[in-house]
Amino acid sequence: MILETIQSPDDLKKLPLEQLPALAAELREFLLQTVSETGGHLGSNLGVVELTLALHYCFTTPKDKIVWDVGHQAYTHKILTGRRDRFPTQRQYKGLSGFPKRSESEHDAFGVGHASTSISAALGMAAAASLDGTRNNVIAVIGDGSLTGGIAFEGLNQAGHLKKNLIVVLNDNEMSISRNVGAFSAFISRKMTTRHFRELKKEMKELLTNIPSFGKDILKFARRAENSLKGFLTPGALFEALGFDYIGPIDGHDLPGLIEVFSNLREFDGPILVHVMTTKGKGYHPAETKPDKFHGVGAFDLSTGAAPAKSAAASYTEIFGRTLVELAEKDPAIVAITAAMPDGTGLNYFAEALPERFFDVGIAEQHALCFAAGLAADGHKPVAAIYSSFVQRGYDQVFHDICLQNLPVVIAMDRGGLVGDDGPTHHGVFDLSYLRHLPGLTFMAPKDENELRHMLKTALELRSPVAIRYPRGAGYGVPLDRHLTALPPGKGELLREGADLAIIAIGSTVVPALEAAESLAKTGITAAVVNARFIKPLDEELILRMATATGAVLTVEENALQGGFGSAVLELLQDKGLTVRVKRLGIPDCFVEHGSQAQLRRDLGIDAEGIAAAAAAFVKN
Amino acid sequence: MILETIQSPDDLKKLPLEQLPALAAELREFLLQTVSETGGHLGSNLGVVELTLALHYCFTTPKDKIVWDVGHQAYTHKILTGRRDRFPTQRQYKGLSGFPKRSESEHDAFGVGHASTSISAALGMAAAASLDGTRNNVIAVIGDGSLTGGIAFEGLNQAGHLKKNLIVVLNDNEMSISRNVGAFSAFISRKMTTRHFRELKKEMKELLTNIPSFGKDILKFARRAENSLKGFLTPGALFEALGFDYIGPIDGHDLPGLIEVFSNLREFDGPILVHVMTTKGKGYHPAETKPDKFHGVGAFDLSTGAAPAKSAAASYTEIFGRTLVELAEKDPAIVAITAAMPDGTGLNYFAEALPERFFDVGIAEQHALCFAAGLAADGHKPVAAIYSSFVQRGYDQVFHDICLQNLPVVIAMDRGGLVGDDGPTHHGVFDLSYLRHLPGLTFMAPKDENELRHMLKTALELRSPVAIRYPRGAGYGVPLDRHLTALPPGKGELLREGADLAIIAIGSTVVPALEAAESLAKTGITAAVVNARFIKPLDEELILRMATATGAVLTVEENALQGGFGSAVLELLQDKGLTVRVKRLGIPDCFVEHGSQAQLRRDLGIDAEGIAAAAAAFVKN
Repeated sequence: MILETIQSPDDLKKLPLEQLPALAAELREFLLQTVSETGGHLGSNLGVVELTLALHYCFTTPKDKIVWDVGHQAYTHKILTGRRDRFPTQRQYKGLSGFPKRSESEHDAFGVGHASTSISAALGMAAAASLDGTRNNVIAVIGDGSLTGGIAFEGLNQAGHLKKNLIVVLNDNEMSISRNVGAFSAFISRKMTTRHFRELKKEMKELLTNIPSFGKDILKFARRAENSLKGFLTPGALFEALGFDYIGPIDGHDLPGLIEVFSNLREFDGPILVHVMTTKGKGYHPAETKPDKFHGVGAFDLSTGAAPAKSAAASYTEIFGRTLVELAEKDPAIVAITAAMPDGTGLNYFAEALPERFFDVGIAEQHALCFAAGLAADGHKPVAAIYSSFVQRGYDQVFHDICLQNLPVVIAMDRGGLVGDDGPTHHGVFDLSYLRHLPGLTFMAPKDENELRHMLKTALELRSPVAIRYPRGAGYGVPLDRHLTALPPGKGELLREGADLAIIAIGSTVVPALEAAESLAKTGITAAVVNARFIKPLDEELILRMATATGAVLTVEENALQGGFGSAVLELLQDKGLTVRVKRLGIPDCFVEHGSQAQLRRDLGIDAEGIAAAAAAFVKN
Repeated sequence: MILETIQSPDDLKKLPLEQLPALAAELREFLLQTVSETGGHLGSNLGVVELTLALHYCFTTPKDKIVWDVGHQAYTHKILTGRRDRFPTQRQYKGLSGFPKRSESEHDAFGVGHASTSISAALGMAAAASLDGTRNNVIAVIGDGSLTGGIAFEGLNQAGHLKKNLIVVLNDNEMSISRNVGAFSAFISRKMTTRHFRELKKEMKELLTNIPSFGKDILKFARRAENSLKGFLTPGALFEALGFDYIGPIDGHDLPGLIEVFSNLREFDGPILVHVMTTKGKGYHPAETKPDKFHGVGAFDLSTGAAPAKSAAASYTEIFGRTLVELAEKDPAIVAITAAMPDGTGLNYFAEALPERFFDVGIAEQHALCFAAGLAADGHKPVAAIYSSFVQRGYDQVFHDICLQNLPVVIAMDRGGLVGDDGPTHHGVFDLSYLRHLPGLTFMAPKDENELRHMLKTALELRSPVAIRYPRGAGYGVPLDRHLTALPPGKGELLREGADLAIIAIGSTVVPALEAAESLAKTGITAAVVNARFIKPLDEELILRMATATGAVLTVEENALQGGFGSAVLELLQDKGLTVRVKRLGIPDCFVEHGSQAQLRRDLGIDAEGIAAAAAAFVKN
């Protein structure tokens, strides 16, 4: 095994070029073995084995900086930079992160998880190097899908202007998480055919022959020439127009070719874009043929590619997706929008059933929400389904385009709360805090997957902005009501009476709160349990009544304690001048690392056991 | 006066084409008269008089939709759509808004104020029209500066892919709010010269003559040809690469030319970009020659262009800008970043004094903050100066790139709180709520401009993320300490002792709170006053001590009451189990319209008088 001899990029550099293909094969084998056991991102990592080897063979981290966009392709990088032994702990509780992380290694130049930031961050580093007068290379590695995100364009735009030394490696697999969309990506993947070329040459000849003189017709001629030449345009021209030098496209699995190019680039000045073609899932047939199924995976059977049998309960995602189709089939005004996540958000069902009303805008959350506002302004009922932590990128659009104009956009926020293995970049634990203050927003969270269905119905009947946040993963397998009923806005439900305290829970913490109340009952403590349903508007009447009746309120949420649901309850009690004891459970003022959802909830004391213990202590105190 | 006959776009359409230039002249005169009295956006509006006339002459709002990007160029649109009489009330308390607003007129298809949203919103409307099977035109009017914003690119990208009927008018004045930056804008403004063209033609001829055959050399040839042709590329090619048809550049002050083009476009299918060249400030010499001084203006002398003598006290903006230069001259690690607002943020001083460490990234707040994080990751001390309401657009970057990695970026948030005449899109009244929950952030607000200086010093000594929010407008004219001292983090200051209640104020409300305490003293109520200084971390010791001593806490902030500073105090009191009476003053759960800062503060009860009244009622209750 060559791989076992590689403890650092220095060891890699000692290998003769001829051994690298064998090392690449060993790396693929290692990735497959590990990821089939731990789960993780597979296709993207199999695609960049040679690219990563070539980068570390030619550049010297941490002096040189490699910024991985999104970071779901950095496994080989981690393995080569001293983390091979710990690699099987990746995405496991207290183990390696599934993403680059500055605190994990000096070779991780920049932490990521969200898409499209690499060019901006790398440009900052390139500007720093220039100010310091240090000669090093800064390399951003970005997929064609991530280029769709506006911040990537903002970064390209300044990079082409600043002219610092920056290498952008465009890792083009014609595939982001799902099928790519957008004119830009269609353009990048454009290939020159012989027929196409022959026609162009003919046109050009005619043009040059027939134009007798220059002078005042120059602009007219230029326009005609340009029209003939449009077909000539390749991605090179586009990036060069933005001030970059361009090399490519080159084969991303050809190690000698990659190494030759990167070696030459070490001394190159100014911004350059290297266009590398890779195959997602390279070397593993099931992943090559079904790339969207092997983007992010759980453990699977390596010989067949099959995932283990799923849990019996359907996921919130699936319930959401199917319910939306059910509603949309009866209401032609409903349209659905995803930012490159049709499968992840469950909108694949909608795309299949009602393709003409389905919009995949690419990785572009800002645009997704403003586009939704435009549709709503003209009488449609857009549902934008976006993970909670990615809605963060569209916060200003929720404010400026949706709430300020009181437009009826429904934001379906999947992955609200703790997401588990993906860790802090992906936890949706701030949404209650960053959306609750927006005037006019109705904000709900269901206690189970059946309530999610009714909330979606409710949201689509309100003619004003609505957000619904629901957790990642399986529901409880509760029966699903066939008839959907709009819930009364701003009304919670009293699930259980009790005299000693009132547990006011929201979303994913309602069922654990009920379980906690049941176990408390055995110890002689009777806890009332309220399912708040609405973060905004709060059910003031019910909360005040339960607070008055019990004199002790325990709030529970899967969100930051700063400015979250519990704070909304505090504000209410203060506004009404009601002085009762309050305790708030939720996520304290720190980032939560990765681990299973169950483990993290336990650690944070917001599972049934933690709630019961906190309630008991609160009552006794 | 022709203008007086125009009550609606229908009246405009009845005019013969020959009368339009005279109407344009009248409109300019009217704009100048009004804006010189009320203040407002001048240069951008003078630049689009003909463009707006042509749009309304050819299209029929509200059936056709015009979406104005940013909206600071929509005055002529307002005047032509039934708001001429009320136009002198624009930006005045209870008067017309300075921006398009759906609630103000059915002709305002989409509300704006922040840049770069028009293409996304218009595309939503175009998609809506297509779904409804209605034949109407949707027009986004966007300046070249706004195109820099990532969401504009996200919108272009999907528009080129969707192929709906969408007209994008690129209003190219080679000037956003300040001088344009970025490779993209440099490219758009590229002109073809004769010499340039002659060289190209020569190269092309050689190329075509010397290539004897097609076949396997085709790609090599294509690359060579493309390199020769790069010089041919004009904005047309770029937009066509993105799937748009392109017309232009055309003279934006030539009414017959504009009308001919727009008339032809009414029946055009698919996305098209019309490139219109305009002159900012057109027709008013002072504004044409000093466009950045006449972008946004107060009242001014029409004959000279001179503004009235400024108030004696320097603005927070100026103090910030000068102090940063003072600090940066002693510390080479400090760098400054603006998103197209060097004058507005006071970084013009920095740009002049230390140009090599100054970065204007264009209208691109997401990139600005991530670029800052990249600089910080490599040991620099970036200060990103961005208006509070525009930091909203970079919320995810503050989370993902800055706080999650604990990088020492200083975010200088100008225009925190109520901004006055610009109204709800520009008020910075949510920042305490949308940033306070981010772990690791230090968050300050100064009571006056002298304290701002010390806070900036403090921020640059902390090696972790910091935000400072300070108000729009003049300081108090307080003496400025020459020696800058870092403040102890998380420590407030007790400004006044008192027994009946403790007023805990933050930022711009501290001085009014002191004044309130003084007037309360005359009525026999003694109020302690605390300048909290830090929203995060709170001065727990001081707040708890004053709460215990007085038993009555009144918090005051110029921010939303949901999740804001007062809520942080509530959380603290609850965490520590301290039961005291609390009242919170701030902005209730609604959007605040435009008006002078003084007027709005009075309405909201957060000026000295309002605080005193609330305190008196609170104590007596």
